[in-house]
Amino acid sequence: MSQWFAWSAPVAAIIGLAVAAYLAVWVLRQDPGNEKMKKISGEIQKGAQAFLFAEYRSLIIFAIIVAIVLAFAVSPLTACAFLTGGILSVIAGYIGMYVATRANARTTQAATKGIAGALRVAYRSGLTMGLVVASLGLMGLSLWAIFFLVFHETPEPEIVDGFVMGASSIALFARVGGGIFTKAADVGADLVGKVEAGIPEDDPRNPAVIADNVGDNVGDVAGMGADLYESYAGAILAPMVLAVAMTFSGILTGENATIALVVPLVLAAGGIIASVLGLFAVNTDDGSKVHKALNRGTYLTSGLVFVIILAVMVFWQMSTGLEAIWFFLSAAAGLAAGLAIGKLTEYYTSYHYKPVKKIALASESGAATNIIEGLSTGMLSTVLPTLVLIAAVAIAYLAGSQVGGMEFGVYGIGLSALGMLTTTATIVGVDAYGPVADNAGGIAEMAGLPHEIRERTDQLDSVGNTTAAVAKGFAVSSAALTALALFVAFKTNLDAGLAANPAATPLNIDLANPFVIIGVLIGAMMPFFFGAMTMGAVSRAANAMIIEVRRQFREIKGLLAGEPDVEPDTKACVSISTKAALREMMLPGILAVVIPVILGILDVNILSGFLVGVLSSGFLMSVYMANTGGAWDNAKKFIETGEHGGKGSEAHKAAVVGDTIGDPFKDTSGPSINILIKVVTVVSLVFVPFFLSLGGGLLHGVLF
Amino acid sequence: MSQWFAWSAPVAAIIGLAVAAYLAVWVLRQDPGNEKMKKISGEIQKGAQAFLFAEYRSLIIFAIIVAIVLAFAVSPLTACAFLTGGILSVIAGYIGMYVATRANARTTQAATKGIAGALRVAYRSGLTMGLVVASLGLMGLSLWAIFFLVFHETPEPEIVDGFVMGASSIALFARVGGGIFTKAADVGADLVGKVEAGIPEDDPRNPAVIADNVGDNVGDVAGMGADLYESYAGAILAPMVLAVAMTFSGILTGENATIALVVPLVLAAGGIIASVLGLFAVNTDDGSKVHKALNRGTYLTSGLVFVIILAVMVFWQMSTGLEAIWFFLSAAAGLAAGLAIGKLTEYYTSYHYKPVKKIALASESGAATNIIEGLSTGMLSTVLPTLVLIAAVAIAYLAGSQVGGMEFGVYGIGLSALGMLTTTATIVGVDAYGPVADNAGGIAEMAGLPHEIRERTDQLDSVGNTTAAVAKGFAVSSAALTALALFVAFKTNLDAGLAANPAATPLNIDLANPFVIIGVLIGAMMPFFFGAMTMGAVSRAANAMIIEVRRQFREIKGLLAGEPDVEPDTKACVSISTKAALREMMLPGILAVVIPVILGILDVNILSGFLVGVLSSGFLMSVYMANTGGAWDNAKKFIETGEHGGKGSEAHKAAVVGDTIGDPFKDTSGPSINILIKVVTVVSLVFVPFFLSLGGGLLHGVLF
Repeated sequence: MSQWFAWSAPVAAIIGLAVAAYLAVWVLRQDPGNEKMKKISGEIQKGAQAFLFAEYRSLIIFAIIVAIVLAFAVSPLTACAFLTGGILSVIAGYIGMYVATRANARTTQAATKGIAGALRVAYRSGLTMGLVVASLGLMGLSLWAIFFLVFHETPEPEIVDGFVMGASSIALFARVGGGIFTKAADVGADLVGKVEAGIPEDDPRNPAVIADNVGDNVGDVAGMGADLYESYAGAILAPMVLAVAMTFSGILTGENATIALVVPLVLAAGGIIASVLGLFAVNTDDGSKVHKALNRGTYLTSGLVFVIILAVMVFWQMSTGLEAIWFFLSAAAGLAAGLAIGKLTEYYTSYHYKPVKKIALASESGAATNIIEGLSTGMLSTVLPTLVLIAAVAIAYLAGSQVGGMEFGVYGIGLSALGMLTTTATIVGVDAYGPVADNAGGIAEMAGLPHEIRERTDQLDSVGNTTAAVAKGFAVSSAALTALALFVAFKTNLDAGLAANPAATPLNIDLANPFVIIGVLIGAMMPFFFGAMTMGAVSRAANAMIIEVRRQFREIKGLLAGEPDVEPDTKACVSISTKAALREMMLPGILAVVIPVILGILDVNILSGFLVGVLSSGFLMSVYMANTGGAWDNAKKFIETGEHGGKGSEAHKAAVVGDTIGDPFKDTSGPSINILIKVVTVVSLVFVPFFLSLGGGLLHGVLF
Repeated sequence: MSQWFAWSAPVAAIIGLAVAAYLAVWVLRQDPGNEKMKKISGEIQKGAQAFLFAEYRSLIIFAIIVAIVLAFAVSPLTACAFLTGGILSVIAGYIGMYVATRANARTTQAATKGIAGALRVAYRSGLTMGLVVASLGLMGLSLWAIFFLVFHETPEPEIVDGFVMGASSIALFARVGGGIFTKAADVGADLVGKVEAGIPEDDPRNPAVIADNVGDNVGDVAGMGADLYESYAGAILAPMVLAVAMTFSGILTGENATIALVVPLVLAAGGIIASVLGLFAVNTDDGSKVHKALNRGTYLTSGLVFVIILAVMVFWQMSTGLEAIWFFLSAAAGLAAGLAIGKLTEYYTSYHYKPVKKIALASESGAATNIIEGLSTGMLSTVLPTLVLIAAVAIAYLAGSQVGGMEFGVYGIGLSALGMLTTTATIVGVDAYGPVADNAGGIAEMAGLPHEIRERTDQLDSVGNTTAAVAKGFAVSSAALTALALFVAFKTNLDAGLAANPAATPLNIDLANPFVIIGVLIGAMMPFFFGAMTMGAVSRAANAMIIEVRRQFREIKGLLAGEPDVEPDTKACVSISTKAALREMMLPGILAVVIPVILGILDVNILSGFLVGVLSSGFLMSVYMANTGGAWDNAKKFIETGEHGGKGSEAHKAAVVGDTIGDPFKDTSGPSINILIKVVTVVSLVFVPFFLSLGGGLLHGVLF
């Protein structure tokens, strides 16, 4: 009666939530510092909360419309699952933001006593977010799955798909909106403050600085959390849907069918427990070892997950005699690829390695060479991650095939995505730690604390930049692998459905079909379109911000001179970012959901090509943009350590230009494309029953 | 006996060559100006000739190795055809460069009397190149085709494929090498001259200026010519190969089989005649109407081609009763798409429209916003061309299918690529006119001619910038369409070959095959890799150039002060560009040829996915890079007309940064990716018999 193992998932989720609650309470009990720090932190809290509320409010109408469409086009229960997926994402994002915006001043305060305490506060607040994201995702998904896949007599995958689509849609808006918010503030603050007025970063006179700090929380905490929440749910779902299809077609029978369905839940449960245990490894008293401490957490978690996967597969093999041990290779390939791509991202974006050093050197001949070198590095940095990704796919597939044929190979691809994402809680934790440390530094600066405090938070922050880049590499590779697994599930369902209908033309997604290639071309174009929309949005919003900051410097007397009791109007800047983000996120978000549906209504062959086009070109664009931006950022930081003339030199000025361009690259467009890949695939998967009801699309069979 | 119509192709080619000879002689008879102008022009000639000779020399070994491999892996005749394709490309490039580097001073001299004469010299020299390119391409291809496809009892397509592969390989090196040469010089000259030393563009004191002018000729004349020569040959070949396959499989019989084989040659012949007639439309005495005059030439040629296509298809339908009139739509869709994408390119890159004006406006807040806006515009500019391209493919396919099923639809796609490329001679002519006008301006500056001469050549040059951008749009869309047609031919041959071998596993290029998706991912990565290699090459070479120019300014006494009789060492700069180009072009060139062969040796399914991946991601990247660069260039030019503070303002400085980054974008990486798309497809097509001899690859049937 192995299906009862499915309950391990909600149980692990509850454990995860309990630990998260413990960590959150611990963080909130820390000393938030003096009045000034509390006030600054309070402003950041208010700004972040106001933005998230406004964002969620403006999504309600969207969610209701989509739910109604789903209720009619697919099923009412799918619509319910969709709403649950979305609501849980919102809750996770809110909790994460709540803790992070309170951990910032507490980290600063802890830093007054030493780096160990500061690291502990920042990392524990990050891990709160990580555990909430993973636990709520697993909780919601597993409950729907338990009722409609595991214990239901005729499993109804489209209902559970709805949950992931809810997660996806919220993630999309959170990423696009959060990305625009944070970079409008960041670019605006930098261009007027650092470049025009010549005041330092995070200077309290700059009215856009609070908005910038708010942005770190809504973009890097809430946005990244929603992103990985979605990948996580999708990666658990994909192998389950494949297991249902294999059972339906008689490839999996009896106990094997049940275990194949339950294994993804068990692996995810194990991942959460491993992440909790990994927490104990992150501890150091030595500022130079922060990075090592964080890595220790990741490696310990990953090591535990390897063991868990192995144990689960051995159990499976011993229970039924199926050679499930091969699946260990499949899942492990995904996990290893995630770690490898993270390392590669670090190589291309950290200033301890050659690529970033070359960009810094190129800055000596000006902004143009800095940018040419950066773009070239970013493009080059796509090569190895692509090869790692395809190696993982090939290994996962070939290993899986050894179990019993190509359907098992496809299931293996699903497991590889899941294998990569089992460590989600830790990855999100390490990533969300970054903005907290960043905020902590900002608060130290704005509150006028002694210089050594800022130095300590800077140490935490510089590690945070690298871990953020690594998390981005992980996010995009997991997005690609999850999307691939979901695409395979989509194709399997579509194929079975069309085959079951004697009147329907079979699926023809052969590359010789010109309409498949047309689909691929449209799909390949989407990331460019998305990149243009999001870059354009940041450009417009940053411009509005620049005008406002200039106005305040001009009109508020004594502000620039730094007279006491003269304060900038920080709310006006928060409001500009909020409005711009809400306005600009709608079109990309709606297009990502609507275009696959339209293509599917036309012809599922075109839609299939489209999904592969988005996946391939989107993966490349996302890696390219994220790494280019990360590399520029750290080239600037490298120069600030005193190389090539240090701060204020011509090389530094050139590097600031690159860094500014890199902001929307790495924090708005790149991550948005990341989600785009998943959203279009999940939407297509959910709508499969609807497309089937149209016989595979209005033009299906007419065109080819 | 309709196969005799095939001879129209070599006949038209001879006419084209005769007209080209007449034009060349006419240009060379014009007055080359005073001694100083002759001297400068002579230096450009020597530099260009030296580079082309060195380039060709270093390609000999490559060509011989490939020919030997082809002789063994495919057939000795294929190797011969390969060498012919390459040699004719070299000859066309050399003639074009020869005339262009002599027309430059003659255009300057003609400009002393007025703009009409100057336009005539520049355009006639450009058209010489255009006619030579098209005529030699058609001559070579048609002779091989006549002997091995049309009059041969058992047609041997792989022999004729070899011709196109020769064209491709040379084009690749010409584009990559020429692109690196010209941009190393341009970026180097600008960064030290304009930015550091504060001397104007084309100032004779700048030692890199001659190299920059040489670059215009080897990059924009010889490089672009080789690019379109290759597309042209490929576009004629693809429908012929498809006709052979359709005859082989019994879909085409009797007279229809012959006509389908001969029609591509007849259409190409008609295109050359139409281009010759279009020449008469390009004439104006009014400087403000230069652009209109050039457009008139393009439209007249296109109009004539429409009529020719219609007449040919009516003739076909009347001869055999096959509803060939539908093919008119197929070919016309391609021709119209070429014109439409040209117009769209103009919209996104000319300063008469909103996108470039917005970039110019963004320059007011500095280089960062200029670049963000430029990158965003470039990404956005991919959307409509993609839609136009897929519309052309869909129309060509659906119209063709009306003739008698999907195989005819595929043949229709081949005709659409050809339809687009029938006007090649005119397009190359209009494009090659640009660098001649550009050189003419440089000579006017360097020879110290009165200001109004430079103003006249500037008028010609500014139009040349737009026509160059339009030609780039045309080049990339024709590359995509040609590659698609060649891919279809590749797939058809592969399919037939595997089906004929009972021991071989059939082709499985269904998107559900993970190895096809792996292929797509590798393919999608290639343009990024290529972009990185070529951008990096320009960056390295420009750096060497900067160091040399700085050295000369420092060490040659009186040079910067402009003392009489003190001359810079221009040869040293030409030599830096030459060496860098030759060194840096080898790796990308070799990879483009070798990677598809390796993938095919592994498994033709992976290779098929790879080709679609390169096509889709490469088309997007190429359009993105070309348009971004073009838009930055013209944003700078727009500011130089006096907007946003004009020359020397902060906005102008910001725009110069964008322009400098745009140089390798639009003139090195974008065009290189363009060729990459075609090279990988042609190489794959040529090696089909070899892959078949391996049963579809060593892992074929093992993997899936």
